[in-house]
Amino acid sequence: MDKVSLASKFATFSEHWSPRIVGELNGQHVKIVKFAGEFMWHHHDHEDEMFLVHRGRFRMQLRDREITLHAGDFLIIPRGVEHRPVADEEVEVILFEPAGTLNTGNVQSERTVADPARL
Amino acid sequence: MDKVSLASKFATFSEHWSPRIVGELNGQHVKIVKFAGEFMWHHHDHEDEMFLVHRGRFRMQLRDREITLHAGDFLIIPRGVEHRPVADEEVEVILFEPAGTLNTGNVQSERTVADPARL
Repeated sequence: MDKVSLASKFATFSEHWSPRIVGELNGQHVKIVKFAGEFMWHHHDHEDEMFLVHRGRFRMQLRDREITLHAGDFLIIPRGVEHRPVADEEVEVILFEPAGTLNTGNVQSERTVADPARL
Repeated sequence: MDKVSLASKFATFSEHWSPRIVGELNGQHVKIVKFAGEFMWHHHDHEDEMFLVHRGRFRMQLRDREITLHAGDFLIIPRGVEHRPVADEEVEVILFEPAGTLNTGNVQSERTVADPARL
């Protein structure tokens, strides 16, 4: 048991759309990820997903609207809701979601990270 | 479903040691709380608890050591582990924990907040 510095963890990698696990509690994972560009439309059948911006900003596209999140903002996407993150510039994001949640949700693709690294 | 600005939510109250619920997902609550001074020793029998510093710093006392957390640091206290937060100056903290987690854990006291407000 020790503290985790988010800034230090973000500094250890540069890949985009590749979440890393930085904590686990109550069956949930704390992950960090860098976004840049457009991701893919997807949803999660059984998991709600929280996005908290650490640095930068991004747009969460929903089918009927778009929400822009800045550092210190968070958004919870309930299970079943289609979404697509788009980052015009690189952004650092903290994720909070059940262990085993796939980054691409219901869509299997080459961007799916089945077994995220632990930092 | 809409985004939440942590800074805006923290600006709505000034009480210390009184968590507010700002989000819920997968049976977990996202809470925000301001600490100042010393809390009480306690543990949680069935819940792991995550503390993420939004602004300021505090010391998490454990029975055998003390961990100082600054803005952008987080710490996960596993269930069963006694702990006591101490803030030499006011600090803003984000909590992730199962819905229903009591701030004073196994200790019932006048500082127990049985039904936190939702912001």
